[in-house]
Amino acid sequence: MGNPRLREVAVVGIGQLPVRQHHAAELRDLAAEAIGLALADAQALPEQVQALYASAMLSDELQNQKHVAALIADTAGLAGVEALEVRAATASGAAALRMAHLAVASGEVDLAVAVGVEKMSEGVVTPVLAKALDAQREVPDGTTLISVNAGLMQLYLDRYGAPREALALFSVNAHANARHNPYALFRERPITVEDVLRSRVINPPIRLLDCSPICDGAAALVLAPAEAAGRYTRHPVWIRASTVATDRFRVADRADPLALEAARCSAQKAYAQAGLGPEDVDFFEAHDAFSIMACLLLEACGFAEPGRGWELALQGAIRPSGRIPIATRGGLKARGHPIGATALYQAGEIVQQLTGRAGGNQLPNPRVGMMQSVGGAAATVLTHIFVREGG
Amino acid sequence: MGNPRLREVAVVGIGQLPVRQHHAAELRDLAAEAIGLALADAQALPEQVQALYASAMLSDELQNQKHVAALIADTAGLAGVEALEVRAATASGAAALRMAHLAVASGEVDLAVAVGVEKMSEGVVTPVLAKALDAQREVPDGTTLISVNAGLMQLYLDRYGAPREALALFSVNAHANARHNPYALFRERPITVEDVLRSRVINPPIRLLDCSPICDGAAALVLAPAEAAGRYTRHPVWIRASTVATDRFRVADRADPLALEAARCSAQKAYAQAGLGPEDVDFFEAHDAFSIMACLLLEACGFAEPGRGWELALQGAIRPSGRIPIATRGGLKARGHPIGATALYQAGEIVQQLTGRAGGNQLPNPRVGMMQSVGGAAATVLTHIFVREGG
Repeated sequence: MGNPRLREVAVVGIGQLPVRQHHAAELRDLAAEAIGLALADAQALPEQVQALYASAMLSDELQNQKHVAALIADTAGLAGVEALEVRAATASGAAALRMAHLAVASGEVDLAVAVGVEKMSEGVVTPVLAKALDAQREVPDGTTLISVNAGLMQLYLDRYGAPREALALFSVNAHANARHNPYALFRERPITVEDVLRSRVINPPIRLLDCSPICDGAAALVLAPAEAAGRYTRHPVWIRASTVATDRFRVADRADPLALEAARCSAQKAYAQAGLGPEDVDFFEAHDAFSIMACLLLEACGFAEPGRGWELALQGAIRPSGRIPIATRGGLKARGHPIGATALYQAGEIVQQLTGRAGGNQLPNPRVGMMQSVGGAAATVLTHIFVREGG
Repeated sequence: MGNPRLREVAVVGIGQLPVRQHHAAELRDLAAEAIGLALADAQALPEQVQALYASAMLSDELQNQKHVAALIADTAGLAGVEALEVRAATASGAAALRMAHLAVASGEVDLAVAVGVEKMSEGVVTPVLAKALDAQREVPDGTTLISVNAGLMQLYLDRYGAPREALALFSVNAHANARHNPYALFRERPITVEDVLRSRVINPPIRLLDCSPICDGAAALVLAPAEAAGRYTRHPVWIRASTVATDRFRVADRADPLALEAARCSAQKAYAQAGLGPEDVDFFEAHDAFSIMACLLLEACGFAEPGRGWELALQGAIRPSGRIPIATRGGLKARGHPIGATALYQAGEIVQQLTGRAGGNQLPNPRVGMMQSVGGAAATVLTHIFVREGG
């Protein structure tokens, strides 16, 4: 279990901006504001920060801006620190967290910030998002992230005979939970199965309410070695696993398109790192960019047998009162999916749950929270497992 | 000196493609080919690789491709491994090396590959490169990487009264050295001071032959813990320092534009990590994207007093026979500067020198090689120090 060479790492501060359309703010300012909130939460000063790992997937095109880590560091008053950008397409926020965890665990960095930001409201995002797919062998055929997910959903429905209503319940659960999250985009919109099934067809069988929305946001985490966590917070949360795995890049090259090998492999590595199994996980922040993805990830992580993830939705097991709650603060579907920031929202929400700060969404006494972050068509998947103090 | 928690890390394999215009090859294939060469050099099989850290600065625009780490992993037969992209604008290759070093040093990864690739020959690169600057406060004024460097060069000439000829000698040295490097772009073109001073004006006082060229390339390094290095090679090279520092993002916000604080700070951290000083460094692969940058980096690293870096060129100290040889295989100027790959060429060249494999460029018995990699207008600078076995 774990690597004895590595230090245990604690999350000692979190910061989130409300997921909205932040037309007036610049990308850098959104990120710096999230960092400021996270440092305030950790009662830490900018001078104490030694490293900043940043992610923004779309800034090259939408803001004509590269080199965002150094730009954000400067804006946040951190000029001087180590600052690098880490990416894995739509999982980029988790990639920044992975590097921050490694830097602190190794002993090289004593206080690190992972920040993610995205400002999607100023541009046409679909062709930019499609760059997460194979530009030579997929995109020229009209393939997009939506069409890939539509193909997986159709195959799933056909192969396993899952009722379409069951998949709609992933979105219903997400919207219900978002109502209590002041940072969520769709906090005013509880929806029903009928709403999902009557919503506009985007790419059959995917309808509008199967999809996460386009939005702006920024979120940050402050990480410190466990032995120093008490200096920053009375409620540290341990990161017990931080793993990455990849799969064949194109879905067409995979033995079973519904198996999501990168998710399975990344979860297995994470369980081994943490010395835990799926039975120990109290809740799961899945990368529910599309409802089918939430279902497939539940299966890949061992929360359901292959082909039976939809039963968890139908049985209510994914609801806050169920066996394996997901999207507890709204998920990508209803909190929103500002790409580069998303995983840092997920991580912050897990910390909120584990420290009793989830407000109207609070789960009863959770001990272990897990998250997965999906890059592109699941060619890259990252898994993080968090455990509360004393857990 | 160093962090006792970290494992010592060795470079056990290097791979480089000739820097050319590789019109026929895809980005992914260039990267995979470099990885194959590096693994062959390390006598390692793809199955042994646990992690791949990749860099490509311009692929978003020039190849419409994001998510390159997973794509390259798949192409190289590594699907399954941890694969992430790491960036710091024009220093991106060094950022990938930084993460690979951290992953192996921490004990998490036993065999890592850092790969960099760029294919600049299929697009207009100047506006894409300018995204390394501030898209809101610099680029709208017409600022480019060339104009920033031109401003620094003019200020340097004015403030220190350096002879223009001395700066031209940086390019002359680079081209002279490239003649013996079969991987260099300009191996057929020795040049004179007069050639530089008569070449086309790009942005006064910068002329064509002060600038590194636009080109394609890929290079890779294989890293292993020192205790396992003997399994892969009889000639390991230790990475004794891997550091990053940032500066105020815009040159206009810095107290002294010629001081390059990120370079100075990153070098100081590297010297402390390695337990070495500038007097111990036998040669220096500088980020000579422009001749003025080579000069300023020599000063920032302590090889010359501020304002006196040009004297090293005039005295011949930067030549292979001098006190502090630079661009020993051609440098960015004449080997070429395929952005995301550049730092991995620099690192591979240092390994060649330290293991007696630099052919017609071989320095006599060097022990310590250092490199710096500059992101944008030096808002980010990375420093790596390499020491040969027994050194």
